[in-house]
Amino acid sequence: MYTATTQIRVRYGETDQMGYLYYGNYALYYEVGRTDAIRQLGFTYRELEEKGILMPVVEFHTQFLRPAFYDDLLTVHTCIKELNEEYKILFHTEIYNEKNKLLNKGVTTLVFVDALSKKKTVMPELLRERLSPYFN
Amino acid sequence: MYTATTQIRVRYGETDQMGYLYYGNYALYYEVGRTDAIRQLGFTYRELEEKGILMPVVEFHTQFLRPAFYDDLLTVHTCIKELNEEYKILFHTEIYNEKNKLLNKGVTTLVFVDALSKKKTVMPELLRERLSPYFN
Amino acid sequence: MYTATTQIRVRYGETDQMGYLYYGNYALYYEVGRTDAIRQLGFTYRELEEKGILMPVVEFHTQFLRPAFYDDLLTVHTCIKELNEEYKILFHTEIYNEKNKLLNKGVTTLVFVDALSKKKTVMPELLRERLSPYFN
Amino acid sequence: MYTATTQIRVRYGETDQMGYLYYGNYALYYEVGRTDAIRQLGFTYRELEEKGILMPVVEFHTQFLRPAFYDDLLTVHTCIKELNEEYKILFHTEIYNEKNKLLNKGVTTLVFVDALSKKKTVMPELLRERLSPYFN
Repeated sequence: MYTATTQIRVRYGETDQMGYLYYGNYALYYEVGRTDAIRQLGFTYRELEEKGILMPVVEFHTQFLRPAFYDDLLTVHTCIKELNEEYKILFHTEIYNEKNKLLNKGVTTLVFVDALSKKKTVMPELLRERLSPYFN
Repeated sequence: MYTATTQIRVRYGETDQMGYLYYGNYALYYEVGRTDAIRQLGFTYRELEEKGILMPVVEFHTQFLRPAFYDDLLTVHTCIKELNEEYKILFHTEIYNEKNKLLNKGVTTLVFVDALSKKKTVMPELLRERLSPYFN
Repeated sequence: MYTATTQIRVRYGETDQMGYLYYGNYALYYEVGRTDAIRQLGFTYRELEEKGILMPVVEFHTQFLRPAFYDDLLTVHTCIKELNEEYKILFHTEIYNEKNKLLNKGVTTLVFVDALSKKKTVMPELLRERLSPYFN
Repeated sequence: MYTATTQIRVRYGETDQMGYLYYGNYALYYEVGRTDAIRQLGFTYRELEEKGILMPVVEFHTQFLRPAFYDDLLTVHTCIKELNEEYKILFHTEIYNEKNKLLNKGVTTLVFVDALSKKKTVMPELLRERLSPYFN
């Protein structure tokens, strides 16, 4: 299992008139968590794209347990639990507030796509290599 | 069953560098679909809020089958399939492009909350009244 | 002078906790207005991009006179006042609410960029041709 | 003069299909800069709002000199240059990339509004007190 942690502060423009972090903005926070999870492995998602690998999201499931508010400093845990899939990868995300209350949790599924052919491809060697020590 | 239809054109700022409608922006389109579904019943979600009912999203599940692109005119079908729940309501959404290809589908679960007490409450009478003819 | 008109309804996710349309979201509305202004000339900005012309924004100036609220149906007037510039184009925008009150006005300056060379280029012939009847 | 510095990393969802940070998202970065500028004075904008002071933006002017890209770590300088206005405050913003190139600069004007009466009010004492040492 591989886990990474990121902190994100809720922006004013990300709230809605209910005074909550808008439900649609969690996807951005999940993305930041995934980006940082890859960065903490020693390379970047940007480099993957530059090498011709895209990782579009194919499924997104999220549960909102408690609201987040403007200026809250949230902690995002991003976790990869298994490497069994060849063409896709699942990121499990949990978001906590400063009181360590779980606000939101969910799973995002991404596929590996060759940028040129736009076809599904296998997990890039670089990513598999860096992740594998966490799965033995 | 109650179904409503809305059209939304993809904005430039809603795309990402992959050239796709960013996965996080679908939540906004789902919201527009739900808002229009209520409007087509003869009142507005804004009026519900003014009467002291909030409807925060508690669960959001979405699948991305094909990408949407800038300037695509999308058709959003928003459907309520049953009224069995007392405190929550499920909206089923499907998004099609101009070639009538299904791009995305998902379910959003919202709860009814009293704006003052911030406590869960039952479906507002007005909403139940307007929906019930579709469920006999 | 060339003027085009578009209608946009304020989305819930575009409001902030003040209950106003977030000031940062006006840029999106301006973009929708510009896109529709070009569409009403008989082609699309998407087509321009496909032909290798990008139009990045180089300057954006906007004044917020009155707030816009959730579910307001706004009218966006987008106006081109002169064609004197070779490498850039100015769009003047005014946004009105349903009571015909002016909420916001501003100017966006875009340059023409060759997508391949990433260098500044002159206004595409197609755009100049369609606009010129309005400037005689 | 009072200056504060913040770092922001460009999110994938904030880019557009041109591969640039979308021009409309700079407003969010300016907001983060202002929020941090106030935090570095020893209190928060959130506290101001809780005390009944709103600070809506009334004018926003921004120039885009060079594009920002996905995953760029930007440095935002937020500066208050004078305190002469009674009812409003101007924030000057400059955004640099990791190569210390100036990408964007602009000015945002905010007014002080009483949350209850919704009327213009003078700069809150707390803010004036903390800022004044920088203007002697």
